Amino acid sequence: MKNEKKLTKREENYSKWYNELIIKASLAENAAVRGCMVIKPYGYAIWERVQSLLDEKFKDTGHKNAYFPLFVPKSLFEAEEKNAEGFAKECAVVTHYRLKKDESTKNKLIVDPEAKLEEELIVRPTSEAIIWKTYQNWIKSYRDLPLKINQWANVVRWEMRTRLFLRTAEFLWQEGHTAHATKDEAMEETLLINSIYANFVEQVMGIPVIQGIKTEAEQFAGAEKTYCIEALMQDGKSLQAGTSHFLGQNFSKAFNVKYATKEGGLDFVWATSWGVSTRLMGALVMAHGDDNGLVLPPNIAPFQVVIIPIYKSKEDIEKIEKEVEAIKDIFREHNIRFEYDDRDSFTPGYKFNEYELKGVPIRISIGLRDIEKKGVEIARRDTFEKMFVPKETLLETIKTTLDDIQTKVFEKALNFRNNNITQVENFDDFKEILNTKGGYISAHWDGTRETEETIKKLTKATIRCIPMDVQSEQGKCVYSGNKSTQRVLFAKAY
Amino acid sequence: MKNEKKLTKREENYSKWYNELIIKASLAENAAVRGCMVIKPYGYAIWERVQSLLDEKFKDTGHKNAYFPLFVPKSLFEAEEKNAEGFAKECAVVTHYRLKKDESTKNKLIVDPEAKLEEELIVRPTSEAIIWKTYQNWIKSYRDLPLKINQWANVVRWEMRTRLFLRTAEFLWQEGHTAHATKDEAMEETLLINSIYANFVEQVMGIPVIQGIKTEAEQFAGAEKTYCIEALMQDGKSLQAGTSHFLGQNFSKAFNVKYATKEGGLDFVWATSWGVSTRLMGALVMAHGDDNGLVLPPNIAPFQVVIIPIYKSKEDIEKIEKEVEAIKDIFREHNIRFEYDDRDSFTPGYKFNEYELKGVPIRISIGLRDIEKKGVEIARRDTFEKMFVPKETLLETIKTTLDDIQTKVFEKALNFRNNNITQVENFDDFKEILNTKGGYISAHWDGTRETEETIKKLTKATIRCIPMDVQSEQGKCVYSGNKSTQRVLFAKAY
Repeated sequence: MKNEKKLTKREENYSKWYNELIIKASLAENAAVRGCMVIKPYGYAIWERVQSLLDEKFKDTGHKNAYFPLFVPKSLFEAEEKNAEGFAKECAVVTHYRLKKDESTKNKLIVDPEAKLEEELIVRPTSEAIIWKTYQNWIKSYRDLPLKINQWANVVRWEMRTRLFLRTAEFLWQEGHTAHATKDEAMEETLLINSIYANFVEQVMGIPVIQGIKTEAEQFAGAEKTYCIEALMQDGKSLQAGTSHFLGQNFSKAFNVKYATKEGGLDFVWATSWGVSTRLMGALVMAHGDDNGLVLPPNIAPFQVVIIPIYKSKEDIEKIEKEVEAIKDIFREHNIRFEYDDRDSFTPGYKFNEYELKGVPIRISIGLRDIEKKGVEIARRDTFEKMFVPKETLLETIKTTLDDIQTKVFEKALNFRNNNITQVENFDDFKEILNTKGGYISAHWDGTRETEETIKKLTKATIRCIPMDVQSEQGKCVYSGNKSTQRVLFAKAY
Repeated sequence: MKNEKKLTKREENYSKWYNELIIKASLAENAAVRGCMVIKPYGYAIWERVQSLLDEKFKDTGHKNAYFPLFVPKSLFEAEEKNAEGFAKECAVVTHYRLKKDESTKNKLIVDPEAKLEEELIVRPTSEAIIWKTYQNWIKSYRDLPLKINQWANVVRWEMRTRLFLRTAEFLWQEGHTAHATKDEAMEETLLINSIYANFVEQVMGIPVIQGIKTEAEQFAGAEKTYCIEALMQDGKSLQAGTSHFLGQNFSKAFNVKYATKEGGLDFVWATSWGVSTRLMGALVMAHGDDNGLVLPPNIAPFQVVIIPIYKSKEDIEKIEKEVEAIKDIFREHNIRFEYDDRDSFTPGYKFNEYELKGVPIRISIGLRDIEKKGVEIARRDTFEKMFVPKETLLETIKTTLDDIQTKVFEKALNFRNNNITQVENFDDFKEILNTKGGYISAHWDGTRETEETIKKLTKATIRCIPMDVQSEQGKCVYSGNKSTQRVLFAKAY
């Protein structure tokens, strides 16, 4: 059984490399439904780690999970005007609730025209509308606040041009929706979540991010202020990896959600919403992948070590399995996630290639010769280094190597990112850098929507964010020459 | 702050009791979308336990999770004829992919008639069609088998009359879809899953079930054989709590999924599918609930113990919290799930009532007098027994009490179930028992669909299942008087 031909190289065709990698590493594939994807078991196992680790963070900070309906009646959907306008063009709409037999063609079904809904239902592109309609009944008094709810769900945004994980009609995500008595508390929540996202993506997924604020043009439809984490991909484009919105009182006013204050008054509540999605899977591929496939940081890998037996006869494999059992016990005891691949219908070479594509951090191979020498061979996915490790030091070596891979993978991405932030002072340099080097351009901007839009039209670069840690600095807008007080980050983006 | 008026009693109006309990215990509520529900945090926390515990069982038996699209193109949906026919009447159909501004009314949106889909999309009522279309590409050779996949997802079945958890337009479930090289292996899988369901529902949820086989009239549309677990509710009606289907080669033939055998042949694969849903939440309520609210078996309870401080002054609460910290540490160390409710905007009496409604197995209350006496008061939810427990024996008492509640709740339900299986030999007794005592009627049936349908028409009772452990026994059909070789179980059902 031979593997199919090699992966396209990144520098040859980055976008082809990306698609091929996802298919060959068995992460996902295009579904038989236009614009939708099937997340395959290996890809889903990574997503399950994202879910369980983030879920823990949300719960540790006082959030509870709940579940709200998939459908939003049109009249609710349009209640918050800006939000509705922002999503109207990409809504899947349910209009009928029954099929019937097509009398003219055997075994075919048609939509039953008599089963038309009185009011159309929108398949949720995001759940603010249905959730705030629900909060109307849940929030009566200060006793009911803060209300901090999260849901793990599927959402649908009809996209014309789709790409696996990055832009699909249906995707999976979590969406948090909170309500607070004060503006300050809501703002604190918005920032808390943005930092939870940043820490998770950096420490678990090994992807450095820039925390920042979106400009008005780029913020969430219905938000007062959108905070985000932006990550740089290897092709020099930025990817918005998560957003946390301060919604002000927009939704509480649209849905008339007031609470009785401790002092006896009646006030509108303050809101936030925030989410990360299966898009993070795309970031993972593009931040760390190489020409041999995916490279997984150990903290996010479904299994950190794969053990592959090298054998010819039945007697060989029996001897090997005895050794492997001991290794498995040690790994289990020390919470090292592993998989033992003893499929006899695939060669070791095929398996080596498969796990390289899948980015498994460490590969252990063990044959008779290794047993004689009382050890195993280990290979690092990130550096391709191989070494023979004696049994006695195996656990220690695996632990330090996993730690080292986690650190190195992050550092590599961080160096790349830091080397690709360029300060620019005039528009010619701006265009030049954008088209040659790519990455982030740190430049002064006059703060107007016109300038932002013009630059986008001329260069396809958008303001990814106003970084949160940026120093105020007097300067002139890179495009208009007007006064500016701080630099913002421009980039082409996914 | 007073609680709202008492729960309706079961014997007064069972169905009203059920609805009220779900609302008052904050499990779920009707959504602003017709037929859909909002699963509230406490209800969702129970569902999360169902998910994590069942997921572990699936993974331990070699299944992997994946995710398939929400939408099924109509042409795929109709490929397996019986399955399509079975679900056609309850399909939500997406026909458009865009809204636009209604020029005649400010801030209103209408469906854009120009954004009509070429082919309608069905919101999945179950995923066999889309999954078997996908398996076409995944299964080529015996090396790809068995393929054992599960997904946690939402599905939509348009129901005219809905009830929280039992029958809602959208519900949450898991659906397993497996493919096998042989018929025997597929049958083994079908039975394995049915027993996993039975063990889970009995041992974790404390609900006794009968494992059985559905008659042809009652089986899944597209299955060759449907296995099920049936549970008896306190009103004498049966609830189908889970099903596991042997699909034969129906779907592999409909979607042309063949595999190259080891011997060089080409064969259709054998399939199973199986699922449990948020319906289990309804079973939980109706199997154990009493006139004071929910009664949770400790194994499924999101928190097994609630700790409530009884205090008047700030000094009181400080003293109490010192004691409580010690208890919390012990509970954490021994994996006892607990919650400490120190909200100062609610009285202890309000809280007692709230956790009684929520069915929390054990309540601990602790005030200054308890501290003086070096202990706490505990109250069991199932028996309402209260006792004072000294600090030193608290952990031991909690552990044994939780075990005892788990056992007793199951035994109570088992006794009730066993006392409500009545052997009946003629149709007059059949009707009499059904209308007075209710429960299961164990009776001979001649095996024909006609008899089954007639009995249903005359009595509203259906054959819930042919129990798997039933002895073969010569007899005469309770309705037709024709020959029969074994008894089946009839009941009215949810």
